[in-house]
This record gives sequence, structure tokens and C-alpha cells, in this order.
Amino acid sequence: MKAIQMVKAQAEPELREVDKPSPGPGQVLLKVTAAGACHSDDFVLNAPPGALGFDLPMTLGHEGAGVVAEVGSGVDSVTEGTSVVVYGPWGCGVCRFCSQGLENYCSKAEELKIYPPGLGAPGAMAEYMIVDDPRHLVPIGDLDPVSTVSLTDAGLTPYHAIKASLPKLVGGSTAVVIGSGGLGHVAIQMLRHLSPAQVIALDVTQNKLDFAKSVGAHEAVLSDSDAVDNVRKIVGKDGVTAVFDFVGYQPTIDIAMGVVGTLGDVTIVGLGDGSATAKVGYWAQPHEVSVRSPYWGARTELLEVIDLAHNGVVDVALETFSLDDGVEAYRRLAANNLRGRAVVVP
Amino acid sequence: MKAIQMVKAQAEPELREVDKPSPGPGQVLLKVTAAGACHSDDFVLNAPPGALGFDLPMTLGHEGAGVVAEVGSGVDSVTEGTSVVVYGPWGCGVCRFCSQGLENYCSKAEELKIYPPGLGAPGAMAEYMIVDDPRHLVPIGDLDPVSTVSLTDAGLTPYHAIKASLPKLVGGSTAVVIGSGGLGHVAIQMLRHLSPAQVIALDVTQNKLDFAKSVGAHEAVLSDSDAVDNVRKIVGKDGVTAVFDFVGYQPTIDIAMGVVGTLGDVTIVGLGDGSATAKVGYWAQPHEVSVRSPYWGARTELLEVIDLAHNGVVDVALETFSLDDGVEAYRRLAANNLRGRAVVVP
Amino acid sequence: MKAIQMVKAQAEPELREVDKPSPGPGQVLLKVTAAGACHSDDFVLNAPPGALGFDLPMTLGHEGAGVVAEVGSGVDSVTEGTSVVVYGPWGCGVCRFCSQGLENYCSKAEELKIYPPGLGAPGAMAEYMIVDDPRHLVPIGDLDPVSTVSLTDAGLTPYHAIKASLPKLVGGSTAVVIGSGGLGHVAIQMLRHLSPAQVIALDVTQNKLDFAKSVGAHEAVLSDSDAVDNVRKIVGKDGVTAVFDFVGYQPTIDIAMGVVGTLGDVTIVGLGDGSATAKVGYWAQPHEVSVRSPYWGARTELLEVIDLAHNGVVDVALETFSLDDGVEAYRRLAANNLRGRAVVVP
Amino acid sequence: MKAIQMVKAQAEPELREVDKPSPGPGQVLLKVTAAGACHSDDFVLNAPPGALGFDLPMTLGHEGAGVVAEVGSGVDSVTEGTSVVVYGPWGCGVCRFCSQGLENYCSKAEELKIYPPGLGAPGAMAEYMIVDDPRHLVPIGDLDPVSTVSLTDAGLTPYHAIKASLPKLVGGSTAVVIGSGGLGHVAIQMLRHLSPAQVIALDVTQNKLDFAKSVGAHEAVLSDSDAVDNVRKIVGKDGVTAVFDFVGYQPTIDIAMGVVGTLGDVTIVGLGDGSATAKVGYWAQPHEVSVRSPYWGARTELLEVIDLAHNGVVDVALETFSLDDGVEAYRRLAANNLRGRAVVVP
Repeated sequence: MKAIQMVKAQAEPELREVDKPSPGPGQVLLKVTAAGACHSDDFVLNAPPGALGFDLPMTLGHEGAGVVAEVGSGVDSVTEGTSVVVYGPWGCGVCRFCSQGLENYCSKAEELKIYPPGLGAPGAMAEYMIVDDPRHLVPIGDLDPVSTVSLTDAGLTPYHAIKASLPKLVGGSTAVVIGSGGLGHVAIQMLRHLSPAQVIALDVTQNKLDFAKSVGAHEAVLSDSDAVDNVRKIVGKDGVTAVFDFVGYQPTIDIAMGVVGTLGDVTIVGLGDGSATAKVGYWAQPHEVSVRSPYWGARTELLEVIDLAHNGVVDVALETFSLDDGVEAYRRLAANNLRGRAVVVP
Repeated sequence: MKAIQMVKAQAEPELREVDKPSPGPGQVLLKVTAAGACHSDDFVLNAPPGALGFDLPMTLGHEGAGVVAEVGSGVDSVTEGTSVVVYGPWGCGVCRFCSQGLENYCSKAEELKIYPPGLGAPGAMAEYMIVDDPRHLVPIGDLDPVSTVSLTDAGLTPYHAIKASLPKLVGGSTAVVIGSGGLGHVAIQMLRHLSPAQVIALDVTQNKLDFAKSVGAHEAVLSDSDAVDNVRKIVGKDGVTAVFDFVGYQPTIDIAMGVVGTLGDVTIVGLGDGSATAKVGYWAQPHEVSVRSPYWGARTELLEVIDLAHNGVVDVALETFSLDDGVEAYRRLAANNLRGRAVVVP
Repeated sequence: MKAIQMVKAQAEPELREVDKPSPGPGQVLLKVTAAGACHSDDFVLNAPPGALGFDLPMTLGHEGAGVVAEVGSGVDSVTEGTSVVVYGPWGCGVCRFCSQGLENYCSKAEELKIYPPGLGAPGAMAEYMIVDDPRHLVPIGDLDPVSTVSLTDAGLTPYHAIKASLPKLVGGSTAVVIGSGGLGHVAIQMLRHLSPAQVIALDVTQNKLDFAKSVGAHEAVLSDSDAVDNVRKIVGKDGVTAVFDFVGYQPTIDIAMGVVGTLGDVTIVGLGDGSATAKVGYWAQPHEVSVRSPYWGARTELLEVIDLAHNGVVDVALETFSLDDGVEAYRRLAANNLRGRAVVVP
Repeated sequence: MKAIQMVKAQAEPELREVDKPSPGPGQVLLKVTAAGACHSDDFVLNAPPGALGFDLPMTLGHEGAGVVAEVGSGVDSVTEGTSVVVYGPWGCGVCRFCSQGLENYCSKAEELKIYPPGLGAPGAMAEYMIVDDPRHLVPIGDLDPVSTVSLTDAGLTPYHAIKASLPKLVGGSTAVVIGSGGLGHVAIQMLRHLSPAQVIALDVTQNKLDFAKSVGAHEAVLSDSDAVDNVRKIVGKDGVTAVFDFVGYQPTIDIAMGVVGTLGDVTIVGLGDGSATAKVGYWAQPHEVSVRSPYWGARTELLEVIDLAHNGVVDVALETFSLDDGVEAYRRLAANNLRGRAVVVP
């Protein structure tokens, strides 16, 4: 079968012919219906040789959707023909975090060499893919897999970030979304449907601000050196209730810390550089701001995100590509000139 | 191998010779080190013919401990020789509740005919037992399986009940435990170690009240017609913060509702009769009492309970029996003259 | 000044001439801009002589709005001319509950003979009213006091009830509102704006069901003997996540308990009769339903409700009356033929 | 009457004769029974001229206890002769935070020039003090005011910090307390009584580590360049669940960030220097650590702390001084050679 693989470090992925896999005991084989490309793929493709723990070549694609094609021995909780998406942050299923569905924080994954599909294990950018356990499948009923597949990361990641702040996002609260791209534009939609907060989007071009408003932001502010002042003009002296930074570089973190109010939340989701810092401690007013950097999301939360999709609450902007054109999708991703997410449809 | 089985409805269990099982794909075989008998076994043994969904004969024992003897294909998260206890309320592992570890509330168990071991599936009252998935095992390290096995039910059930009330059990709060038997005496110990609440135990004999005090109750009150007045004398007009009723009959529920205060919790754990009611609605003062009836506990919570055992926080009173004497253990259980839990050691 | 007073038990209120009050130390005098009539007034008016703790005559009106006309000595946190609504469930301000803003559950109110305005203290159905402490005032800015005043009860009460269930009202959840009248129709609007839950309204006439849908209910079901079956047809076997019963009689409580699912919430807000019961305990499936009966709401919650009003999220249906026609408003209320809430505008 | 006052910036406080105050409307006069000195006094005394917003001279003492000597007009919720402690972080009582008892975060205090007693308003280091509102008093019954007074800051501050982490401090969890001085040694005691966490204390001398163990720490580790490794040896690769830093300088914050585990809490309470930073963002593993810097505590929480004192759960180490010797107490505080807290007894 065809698969788009990372073959060597710091090189373009390749479309290759590989063996169609068979499900072992407890595993499930999916006929892939859609696979999403993501900026973190780009990060992986550009990592220095030897920096990643897994072997090459590796089939890409950590956002996957498919139809159950075959189940391994001992699997009785899913049946052939079911349309599903794949929960990507696979864990051991047994440790303290996995037992709560927080497989994204599995405490055994490193030791047991468990990798997410497309980030170590063979991913969804192929005609077929193996899912290691039926618990990593979420049935999607009659939802379109092409428009749904990106929710497994671009939906789940902002949802996990937002959900922790919902108790604070009451009437009269404000939320700032920094970066209105792949994850940010989904975050804006979720904030509007899950809370009564006033939503303010920040980005670097007027085009992106217009897009942010078109998906629901009440206000949109240029992410420049006046951003803190401009946001404070909107929210007043009490500051912002919750800031979600989908960029994660020092300048955006500084904006986040500069606009947040007492008892507020600063959640840094973006894969910015490694040296970002936040001023903390008693003298770093305002008091009792919570600064957190979550990663992906919990298994239950993907069920909830798919339910939001059934409600028609989220709409992911995307461009589609065939498997043959998948390498081009990665080129466009690297060049940062996609209109929304790139979804490969085998 | 030997096993204690329920052979027919409304009859004594029997010690029988059965085939030693082999683990299928994804399963684990345990050499049993301890198995606990419980009042709910008694309930099952006395159910009318046809009332239970599962087939007979069935090996009893929903509290199980053992050593991993063999793993089925596809199992790599546990290794032979590990000492474990078994999480009993097995679920599908996939549904919304299971994805959070709340397998006790699996929404597919009935449809998929998934039963807990000893309550439908073959249980721990045997030389060996099959566990359907490694996620249902909790390693116990060097803890004694005999003194630990009962924590899988008599520890997990009160822990789940108590944990939901902990945010209310602050300094100055009060907790009432009705019934200081198998579950209640563990509840008293947990309340003392997990909260600063004043703990008041209720039971029907002075002997049981003395026992309640010996395991940590600050006060002990006879569960008679003056119980509401006597508890109110201790706690004053604001009432009790959280009541845990491990009996669950109408008179104990009436006491619970009679002593609880505004914004308090009434948690009914006991398997009392089917017609119990609570007065509710605006006129049923005090306001905003939460009445709940939980069942067993979550997978993560069993991990936490085993950690409490490692801390030496809980000490289950018990009597031990050999497998050959296991039927006698059930007789003593039915006659209600055990000193603590009955644990069978094969 | 003119005031509508309860003069004796079980009689119509009367429009009377009374002295204009002056604010004592720490008090605030409001020139009333709007006062709401409520079914609980009707309950008070019909109570038997001597059943209520306070003295007659008493000016009615526990939903009040006004403009600050004069402040007593020691008051510096509000200024004359500010437009406000009144938080009604006055407490001591000092006890454990009041210290969290839960003055609705003040543990000293009874002992200190503190009554809400219009339910013991002189209320808002007059040209002027005394508010005992500036903390009981919520500024409303440029909101119309006439359309806002009812939110102090008909908004705050359902908001408090709903807020406790919001963590469960995730994607894929369902909420049932029983009774789509004064409180229920506000509850429907709030549920739609604060959660992604599917909202199902129950009421006894097709007219009221149409009204429920017009304010946002996804589904509307007649509250008759088939109601449980009809709701279950919509939500499926997992049952309802949260039921809000704004009626509170035995038949509606039975419906609530009949449709709720595992780990669901049943919140009984309505002032139904005194003998309602809920089946509880292990055998009263589904497991771990929380049954609660809250009363009014917290001080912070009224701030949040007013913020929702600023967002345009809630729209209370109402009819207005002059102070001279206020007695007629109570007549219409008693006859149950108002279209929405009755608001008296002095 | 005598009072210890800050007379000018960057100078020693002075014992002076001042007028005995009288309570205005809504105020309460206390005959002081005990007043605590605190490191933040030292900070205030050393601030540059003009750096503080309030006028001098100012009576010191933000930890106060007393007996109600006289109440102003309009005060009816406390009576003369009641023994109380003073909740220090006074707020407006009206804003969103104050309405929840979080007066420590009052959003109007700055605008309304509301200061805590001893930090702007006249404090407790005198024979009498004025409390601005009865809600700022917590009755202590028969507790000794001398041993209780420090709980208003040295008890409330760590309690507020700890309470937010309690849901994570389950069986098997670990807590690190950096700094076992005035606040830290109380934190250790509270952690032991409110959670089953393993408590590890860090400090810079063996003497202080011995003290930390004597008040309940399971382990004590020198706070030096090996501290991260030594703590990790104890807790293993999963890291610490919650770190409480009562020092707050860059080196201790680095230790905190170095030992905390996935989903852990880092709470910085100490008044360290102004330039402390924490590495944040995706690449600052472990994931989803919450970093917070709280200030003092909520009004309800002081009620809970006083209840813990009634339970005998906390024991503050202290030295007592007469009012005449109070200046000496501040000298000893500045020289950092007090054994525990300094309490002045007029």
C-alpha cells in the first residue's frame, strides 16, 4: 500500500510503497478515510538526526480517521465497518494517569517505548493503519471523516486547554486567544459555545484578525508592541480572565502575562522556543495567576469534542489533498501558506 | 484446581474441582494469594432462580489478589511474578465512563454481558483466576495480599464515597458513619486520615461502638430512635456536614436525613431494601443537601487506596480461612458472626 | 409614600400610605425603579396567621431595583444616583456561609431575625426602600431596571441551580427543564448560553411548550404520564445528565427520577408540596444520582447574572403595572393568568 | 495609649503615646490581647520613602487578636467581651472577589484606599485597635489569643496555598515545603493533617531540618545545589505533586521547577526578589504544571484555620514580648534570630 513516510531526519517526507499491516492480538486495522498534517509533523521532520527516540522510516500522520477493516484476536468492543477517529496520545492504559484517561501524560510511555501513531508508531498517512487498542477509537457515526479528522488534535488540544478554565469563564469574564490559526480558530469557536466570556483574538495580520472575527471573536487586536495596552483598553483594569497562547514564543508569553488579571489563567499551548520564561512570585503581580502548559488532551475529552462536532459547534477550515499529493501538503505546511489544516484523503 | 462455586440459586456454595484456565489474547492468569468474601456474595447466593443474568455454576470471589502466573498474547504491561490485587468492577474500557476509569458505571457492560469476577465472571475463590485485561490489575509491591485483598471492595467503596465529600470536610466539619462493620470501620479510618472532620459513628450495639472508637471515631452513638437527637447534641444546630450510610435501610436513611445540615452530603452505600425514600424539595429542610448512592469505585481510586495501604493508613479487621474451609466462611458470613472480613487463602 | 403591604394573613395585599424611611448607620435608601411579584409572595400571603415569624403589616417585594437616594453614616462604597438591583437573601454577613457569599444559607439569620426585604423586612413594592448594607446592592449600569429586576430571583435561582451542574453539561449531555414558567424559561436561556447540552423542556400545555421552544429549548415534551418514555426516546438508554424541576410536586419529582441517568443531577427548585419523596439507595438505579433542593443563590452569582444580562443572554417575559395597580398584579398572579413575571413600576 | 509605630521610612519603629480611638458607625473597638510581628513588616519598614501609599506615622501589626471593647452604631453581629482574631486583608466587601470572601484580592481596595491594619491602617501593636467592620472578626472561644494570633497570617497564608492543591494530594502523592520557618512549619503541620501526602521539607541548616521533622516532615533535605537530585531520589521519576516555596528567590524557584512532576503544582508564597522567572511552554517539561503566587487568604479560610486550631492540629512556635519590648521584637526579627514568630502581648 502507499504511505507517506519520514525516511531521514531533516529531509522531505516521501510517498512510498509499504506492506499492508495485519492486526495482532488486541489490535485494530483501519482503512484510512482521512489523515491530518500538523505543525508538529514539521517539527519532527526537522529534528536533528538521532534526536528522536524512534526508528525510521516512519509513516506520518497523528490525526487519523478510518473505517474498521479487521480486528485482532481478543477484540470484541468494535465491529468491522464502524467509522472512527483515532485518539492519538497513546499510553500504557494502566498507570495512574492512563487510568483517568489522561494517556497524554502516561508515566510509562517512555519506558515502554509507546509512541503516538505518526510520531513514532506508523501513522495515518497511508491506505491502512494499525491502532494498538480499541480504546483509542472514537466512533463518529455519520460525521464526515475529512472535516472531523483534525479535531483529534486541532480540536482536542484547545478543548483540553479551555476546559480547565471554564469554571472561571462566567458572565462578565474575558478570554484572549493568541494565534488564530489551526488550533486558535477552533479555540475561538469552542469558547463562544462553552462559555459566556467575551473573546478577544490576537494575531499578526489584519487578514487573520478578520478570520478570527468570522469564526466568532468579539474583538481582534494586532499582536504587536501595543497589544497589552490595546487589550487592557477593552477589558479594563481587572485584566483578562484566561489567556490561551497558541504561539508560545517569548513575546506572546509576555503579552499573556501582561494582560492577565488576578486569579486568572495563562495557558501556553504553542510549540514556541525552549527559552521562554514567565515572571513569577509575590512581586510579579497580579496575584495568583495560574501558568500552565498542557499537551494534547484526555481520551474522554475527545469523546466530548466529537459530540460538539455532532452539535455542529466546530467547523475546521481545511484544504484536502490526495495521498499522491501528500508530500505537497507537507511542502505547503512548511511554507506556511495553507488555508487552514491540510487533510490527506487516501 | 479447587474452586468455591455458586452452583444453584438460594443454596450454599460448594467446593468443587474445575479445570485450571488458560489466558486468552489480552488476558492474565493469576495464582490466587487471597480472596475476600462479602455481604454482596450473600445477596447473590440468595437471589431467586433466574434473577441474575449470568450462568451457573460460577466461581465466587469479587475481592481478589494474586501473583501473575501467565499472560496471554498481546499483553506486555505486566510481567510474571508480580503481586497484584484485582480491580473488580470490570467495564468495556471504551465508553465515556470507562474512559475516565469509572468502569463501575460502564454504559456498555450490560449490553456486552461484562460481569465482575465472582459476580458473573469466574472469581477469586479458586487456585487460579483469569483477569480479562491487565488494566484491572494493581501491583501491591510488598504489601501482604491477605490483609490487602479486602481493600478492593471494602476499601474502594468507602473511599469513593468519602472522596466526593472531601472538599466539604474542612476544619470544623463533622462526618457521621452509620454502620461500623466491614466498610464502615474502613471509612472511619479513611476519614481520620484524609480530613480534619470530627467523626461520629453509629451502630446498634455497644460492642460495635467500642470497635468504632478503637479505629478512630471521635464519638459513637447508638443507632436507635434517639439517634438524631443525640447526634444533634454533639454537632449543634448547624447539623452534620457529611453522612455515610453503610446500612441503607429506611430507618438509617431517616437518621441520615435527620442529622444532615445545609449544603451537606448524604451518601447511601449500604445494600438496604428497595423501598427507601428521602424527603426532598423546597420544604424538606435543610437546603441543598446532596443525596447520592454510589456503587464501588473508580480504577484510579483503587490505586490511591493501595497507596494509603502503603502508608499504613488503613487496617482491615479480618479472619482467614483455607480454600477447603471457604464454604464455612460463607456460612459464618450468612450467620453474621464474623469478626471483620472473611479472607480465603488458597 | 405609597406601599403595597401584606396587612393580615390570608387576605389580599393593600395599597397604603406609610412613612418614607431614613437610612440608619450602614444602610442605604433606594428610590425604587421596579419591583417584581413572585409566586412565593402568594405563598406568604396565604400562610395561616402566626405561621410566619415576622410582624404585619409588611411591605411586599423581594425583587427590587432602584436608584441610591441617600446613604447612612459609615457607607462609602456606593454613591447617590447609582442604579442598582437588590440581592434579596440577606444574611448576617459574618458566618461561614455568608463569608463565601452564600447569604441564602446564613446560619445566623433565624437567630438574629434577619429577613429578606418583602419577606419580613420592608420590601420593594413602595416608592422607597431601605437596604440594610451596601453589599446587597449590585450596580446595573445602563440596563433597564424594569426588565432586569426579576433577575434577582427568577434569574438568580435557576442560575444557582444550573451552575452546580455545569461541569457535567459537556458535549453530548442533556438537560431537562420541568416547568417553563417564570424561572424555567430563564433556565432554558441560561442552559443554551452556558453549555452545549441538548435542552428538553416539559410543561403541561402545548402553549407553554411552544413558548419553551421560542426561548431556546431543542425539544419540548408534554409533562404527562408518558413523559418518562417520551424523554427516554429522545435521550436514549443513558438517561438525562441534569434535570431541573421548577415545579417540585410528587409527579414532577417522579418524572425527574425516572429520566435521569447514572451520575446525573436532579435539582428540585419548585415550591411543591411538603410530602414529596425520592427513591434512594443502592436499588434505586441509576447509580450515584445527586438529588438536591437549593434555595435562591449566592451574592457573587447575582453579579454573574447581571453580567449575563449585559451580554443580552437572558430576556425575561413580563407585564408591567403601576404602584396603584399593584394589588391587581397580585390578583393576576394568584389567578395564574400573567404572561410572564409581573413588575410594578412606581 | 501606647502603640508601636512606623514613624519614618527605613528607620526603626518607635513606642509612642497616641490617642485611644473610638469606633465610628459600623466599626468595632478591640482591646488588643496579642499582636504578631512578621517579615512583611520588616519589608515595609525598609521600603524607600514615598514607596508606600499610606501616611506615617502608622501603628504596626497586621496579625491581631483582642476582646471586643465597644461597637459603633449599626453593629449588632458582635457583642462586647467576645474574644476574636482579626482577618487582615480588608477589602471593600462588595466587589466580585469580596463577595466570595476573597477580600485579599479586592478589586476596589487600591481605588478606595483600603489598607490592612498594620499595613496602612492602624494595626494591632497597641493597647486598642479599630476594626472597620465586624465581618473582619473571627471569634476564637477559649483559644489562647497569644498562641492563636499568628494564625491570621502565618496560618492563613499557607492554608490558602495548600487548600488549592488538596485535590491532587491523594494517597501516593508527595509535597515539598521549601523553608520551614514561620509559614513553612505551619504548612508542614497542615499538610500532615489535611492529606496523606509524603511531606519533604527543605531548608538551609541541619537545625531547621531537625525542626521541620519535629513538626511532622517525613523527610528533610538540605536546600543546596544537590537538592533537586536528592528530592528526586526520594520521590522517583514521576516527580513531586505539589511544591510550596515559602522563600521565593530564584534558586528556590529553580528547585521547585526542578522537582515537580507532570500535572503538579508549584506555589510560590515567599516574598523573594522581583526578578524570579520560571521556564514555561511546551518544551519546559514536565507538562501541565500549574505555577501560582497567592497572597494571604480568604475570609472563610480563616474560619477554617481557627477550627483547625480548636482541633489542636496546628502549633505555632513563638516568643512573646511586652508592648514596651515590642521594638526589641522588631530588632530581633530584622536580625533573623527569633525562635519562631514574635508575639507582642500588651
